[in-house]
Amino acid sequence: MVAILLQAAEGVKAAKGCHLYVVCQDATNPDTIWVFETWDSKEDHDNSLKLPGTPEMIAKAMPLIDGKPEGTPLVVAGGLGLF
Amino acid sequence: MVAILLQAAEGVKAAKGCHLYVVCQDATNPDTIWVFETWDSKEDHDNSLKLPGTPEMIAKAMPLIDGKPEGTPLVVAGGLGLF
Repeated sequence: MVAILLQAAEGVKAAKGCHLYVVCQDATNPDTIWVFETWDSKEDHDNSLKLPGTPEMIAKAMPLIDGKPEGTPLVVAGGLGLF
Repeated sequence: MVAILLQAAEGVKAAKGCHLYVVCQDATNPDTIWVFETWDSKEDHDNSLKLPGTPEMIAKAMPLIDGKPEGTPLVVAGGLGLF
């Protein structure tokens, strides 16, 4: 799963509006994967899902996920390392 | 609270080993604040807590927090925007 998400991280380099796509394993529960992403807009994020190769990657990843992937939409206030 | 954490984000620029310190508000629950941080080591992170001004910032923030701050230690696998 991590390998697929790292491949996705390579893919989003070509996506408009993506600044961070950081793949992490939960230190306590290594089967839990976190991806922290920042985008200029939700629209940019949604468009990236149509990039060549992305639907195939998602299809490869979905069977590996136990249950439904969870997501928490956030609003970036600022900080270090954003751009 | 966001303002204090953004001040902390400025402060960690002087800290050894900090690459990301991103302050976010939960889009659904704006009273919930998320900070995504990446460090070269836990030691670097712990040392940053002793930087001049940091204890005072923590003291200012703690009364604003409802209950205990939660944290999820992660292991970075890789991705876009890390360095």
